[in-house]
Amino acid sequence: MTRTTSEQAGEIDALRASTNSTLRPVSDELEALLYKPLPVLDHGFVRVVDYMGNDEAIVQAARVSYGRGTKRVQEDRGLINYLLRHWHTTPFEMAEIKFHVKLPIFVARQWIRHRTANVNEYSARYSVLDREFYIPEPKHLAAQSASNRQGRGDVLQGDEAAEVLAILRRDAEQAYDDYALMLNDNSEGKQRDDRVGLARELARMNLSLNFYTQWYWKTDLHNLMGFLRLRADAHAQYEIRAYADVIMDVMAAWVPLAHAAFMEYRFGAVQLSATGVKVVQRMIAGEKVSQEESGLTKREWTELLSALQLDEGA
Amino acid sequence: MTRTTSEQAGEIDALRASTNSTLRPVSDELEALLYKPLPVLDHGFVRVVDYMGNDEAIVQAARVSYGRGTKRVQEDRGLINYLLRHWHTTPFEMAEIKFHVKLPIFVARQWIRHRTANVNEYSARYSVLDREFYIPEPKHLAAQSASNRQGRGDVLQGDEAAEVLAILRRDAEQAYDDYALMLNDNSEGKQRDDRVGLARELARMNLSLNFYTQWYWKTDLHNLMGFLRLRADAHAQYEIRAYADVIMDVMAAWVPLAHAAFMEYRFGAVQLSATGVKVVQRMIAGEKVSQEESGLTKREWTELLSALQLDEGA
Amino acid sequence: MTRTTSEQAGEIDALRASTNSTLRPVSDELEALLYKPLPVLDHGFVRVVDYMGNDEAIVQAARVSYGRGTKRVQEDRGLINYLLRHWHTTPFEMAEIKFHVKLPIFVARQWIRHRTANVNEYSARYSVLDREFYIPEPKHLAAQSASNRQGRGDVLQGDEAAEVLAILRRDAEQAYDDYALMLNDNSEGKQRDDRVGLARELARMNLSLNFYTQWYWKTDLHNLMGFLRLRADAHAQYEIRAYADVIMDVMAAWVPLAHAAFMEYRFGAVQLSATGVKVVQRMIAGEKVSQEESGLTKREWTELLSALQLDEGA
Amino acid sequence: MTRTTSEQAGEIDALRASTNSTLRPVSDELEALLYKPLPVLDHGFVRVVDYMGNDEAIVQAARVSYGRGTKRVQEDRGLINYLLRHWHTTPFEMAEIKFHVKLPIFVARQWIRHRTANVNEYSARYSVLDREFYIPEPKHLAAQSASNRQGRGDVLQGDEAAEVLAILRRDAEQAYDDYALMLNDNSEGKQRDDRVGLARELARMNLSLNFYTQWYWKTDLHNLMGFLRLRADAHAQYEIRAYADVIMDVMAAWVPLAHAAFMEYRFGAVQLSATGVKVVQRMIAGEKVSQEESGLTKREWTELLSALQLDEGA
Repeated sequence: MTRTTSEQAGEIDALRASTNSTLRPVSDELEALLYKPLPVLDHGFVRVVDYMGNDEAIVQAARVSYGRGTKRVQEDRGLINYLLRHWHTTPFEMAEIKFHVKLPIFVARQWIRHRTANVNEYSARYSVLDREFYIPEPKHLAAQSASNRQGRGDVLQGDEAAEVLAILRRDAEQAYDDYALMLNDNSEGKQRDDRVGLARELARMNLSLNFYTQWYWKTDLHNLMGFLRLRADAHAQYEIRAYADVIMDVMAAWVPLAHAAFMEYRFGAVQLSATGVKVVQRMIAGEKVSQEESGLTKREWTELLSALQLDEGA
Repeated sequence: MTRTTSEQAGEIDALRASTNSTLRPVSDELEALLYKPLPVLDHGFVRVVDYMGNDEAIVQAARVSYGRGTKRVQEDRGLINYLLRHWHTTPFEMAEIKFHVKLPIFVARQWIRHRTANVNEYSARYSVLDREFYIPEPKHLAAQSASNRQGRGDVLQGDEAAEVLAILRRDAEQAYDDYALMLNDNSEGKQRDDRVGLARELARMNLSLNFYTQWYWKTDLHNLMGFLRLRADAHAQYEIRAYADVIMDVMAAWVPLAHAAFMEYRFGAVQLSATGVKVVQRMIAGEKVSQEESGLTKREWTELLSALQLDEGA
Repeated sequence: MTRTTSEQAGEIDALRASTNSTLRPVSDELEALLYKPLPVLDHGFVRVVDYMGNDEAIVQAARVSYGRGTKRVQEDRGLINYLLRHWHTTPFEMAEIKFHVKLPIFVARQWIRHRTANVNEYSARYSVLDREFYIPEPKHLAAQSASNRQGRGDVLQGDEAAEVLAILRRDAEQAYDDYALMLNDNSEGKQRDDRVGLARELARMNLSLNFYTQWYWKTDLHNLMGFLRLRADAHAQYEIRAYADVIMDVMAAWVPLAHAAFMEYRFGAVQLSATGVKVVQRMIAGEKVSQEESGLTKREWTELLSALQLDEGA
Repeated sequence: MTRTTSEQAGEIDALRASTNSTLRPVSDELEALLYKPLPVLDHGFVRVVDYMGNDEAIVQAARVSYGRGTKRVQEDRGLINYLLRHWHTTPFEMAEIKFHVKLPIFVARQWIRHRTANVNEYSARYSVLDREFYIPEPKHLAAQSASNRQGRGDVLQGDEAAEVLAILRRDAEQAYDDYALMLNDNSEGKQRDDRVGLARELARMNLSLNFYTQWYWKTDLHNLMGFLRLRADAHAQYEIRAYADVIMDVMAAWVPLAHAAFMEYRFGAVQLSATGVKVVQRMIAGEKVSQEESGLTKREWTELLSALQLDEGA
């Protein structure tokens, strides 16, 4: 399960061996991660390839300051918490991060919906893709949810699981064999002289959505938090969540104060609807509230109890 | 080769049969096209589902006017030409159009790079995709270009062409058969009772990039022109160009003055580099210029001659 | 207090008198408002000049449907509520609205921070601005808040109020007199032959931030809701809130189902931080919680009590 | 003419004195400029406060590479030229720069129209602005152009010039005096005990558009080039051009290869319309072309001759 070839690993080592001097703000914890491929799924990775700013830079921008501003961490923390709580989002746009990501195409198709980002994808018009595709681990081979049209149910068992894995693997191998055959290039040493080879931009259409692609993806911290709020969420598809979880750790290393604020005021926060607020008020007043006369739909009622970790009989 | 089922055709007819009254500006030529599926490739289409504004609305916005502004077409044409020539782009952002598009996934992946647009895609997490995939016509089955890593060469011939078409079709059918089998839903009447069925969000990864997807895509006229400049260009991949060509016709029906300006000042325009300007000045002065002492690279030299339709010996 | 000249009013009447026929979806309640200047502040207005889509169009986009979709309002309402509650924002981007707004420059400077919108402003490089500036009503002449650096306190009284109003008026009149004098154009009949007149792009710098400007502003419903959430909020500056309040009414006329969902799930919603959730859980369990051991800062504690309308002794 | 107080200068010195170690790519020439206020107009400045990437990073992103890529400058130059010439813009989005800018409000209002950027402005709701306003140098005190409604003509002379300067200065001083008076804060030591002071968010409306504001402005290289193409252009208003010229120099220090490509393929390039191309073809063929039968309007004809530096009789 190699994610990077030895040549690529050598290039990465070379980057990590070469220290530069800068007057810019630095995040030491993120420097420790820089360039390293952080593994995700069976062949994917996330690599931080550059960043701009740190917690201090958020504070500096919020104050439109000339210098570094205060050195008191406690004061910075308070300001960052205040900014995030009150939706003052522009200072968070002042920190930027750039990733090199290797990911299955179907994950890339979800990811790209986050439009406020810069993307440079590996071109399969220009280059030949590698024989690398995603096969889920058995524990992630979920059945369709019976209750939620857009979700996963229990894990598949026994023969059905085995068959699904065999199919996914077989079809992907077949797709790649035929991709290479149609290209008729010598990447796998099977070039035939009586063939001219199909254009790369056409041949790629035979590959399935679990093949891996790569891109450089750059975004600011505000939009990164938007990505994480949706994609690290329990309702996100597992495969993109696996990437979001790794990026969440990167964020914690990079901007620990902003990360703590994010956990408190966004990711771990609960939104009560106008009607939900009234229900909570009644509950706090000691009243026993039932779904029927709560004004909430059954689904909203369940979501409210779950968000507040109350049981049905609350 | 059905693009829309009879049920869908019925829904479209119903929309076209129901006329409403509005005080908004209207483009009569575009009304004639509204909702109709305009065919593209073997199963795809472009349907205009809504629009805002017309040529007059561009003029109105440029003048920040209270009423409709002048009725003199000649004056509107002059202003629109001026705006486009001098990169005053904001008035063109004041017209908006919304399409329903059915397109192969690999085309969707190029299209989505145009970020300043609103997209709502058919969800294969939520629904089951149809057995519809793109197979190129033989005349579009191009070989890899020998000279341009990112381009097409001659059309494949004989056995090679036949084999490629057979492979593309066979692999797509296989991929769909296995998609349906893994889903174990009753869409094709083959549901088995001893299977629970793989989650739709996972099963879709077995489909290849030539399967069709659908989306609603909405953008403003300025960004539509950006899309057309790149995608209706001769260097764009044929399959996305086929969509751009249809949309170009839609634009001509919708905003004829803006379309004419676009052809004159963008699509049919030629950009000379700083060095290219000097070469042209010398040529106009009657001087014979060669690539070697032009200051241009060979490739730029060829591009310049081609853009000005001069022969090598000019 | 004329907001529109009789000529402008005539142009508006002409627009409202001319009905067109369209196959597009229509919002009858919004048609009734179209083009009319809805007054804001002393000389400003909001005019809806065009729109695309209605509640049905949101549903249609969410379903990527061929026709109008269901006719059952109850079902549309349920879907719209679901979409907004679960942050499925793309269908709301499929409805678009365009306004003509007349507003003081300092309000325009706040407004423009909402970047995902199209703007075409009246050009003071190209044209001469009118002698129109904003003077607050006495009841909006607020003192600086003592407790909140970014807020208003009580209303100014007596001499201080009178003096402030007199200053604002006098300085604006002086600024405009000198603007006209420097321009030396004949707009006020005072042109002098021995003067050539300062360039309009320079002369405008003498005007103060309460002078009125105008623009066409176009945005989609998702971003309109973002604007309203921040600008119709009680913490927004009164002068921009006055515009947001009028636009909120426009939204209610245009997309009543989306507006109701917005009031329930965004505007009237309350966000509890992770720590706030724990406090509420304890309160519901009947526990008496104090700020000191709540884990919340004093300010957060006050905000929580206020959001849930609890008294200090809860 | 102090642009920065001694306290601010001290903060800047402290930043420049503190060198950090990083594994990120560095632009040594830009490091030499970092944090320093580069003067613009009478009180303004541009300060680079952070950056991400350099020429190499553009190449790296274009190749979606693991390491630094080639070390051969000649090859990097060729790729960067190719990318810019063929509108492959995404690799240029992978470099980012952040400025602290002090600028007159009327300049800020033009600047903010470039929407794809992150902005954090000094808040006059929260803080009191300084007594600093822009007064043009006599050589920039231009008359309104007689031929171009949106342009400058000759420089004002004698009494008219003197009077304009006196007016601008007097009105700005008066506006600030009254701003301070209405605020009734002790910033100028004139606080009165019988006044409570007008809210800052209201008092600011008395300031004129030549007062200075400040912001942090961050954008990527692609959008920076878009800004420079419009704002360093000869048709831009002088006051914003002064900023663009300084930023152009910053760009040359930061990414010299991209800067050279920008000068060749964008800033120094000439766009020929479709009709203009035909005219040039005829000219190259030795034909004598007149405006009347060129197919170009008079204005386009003049623009073409000027762009190609031909005389009327060509």
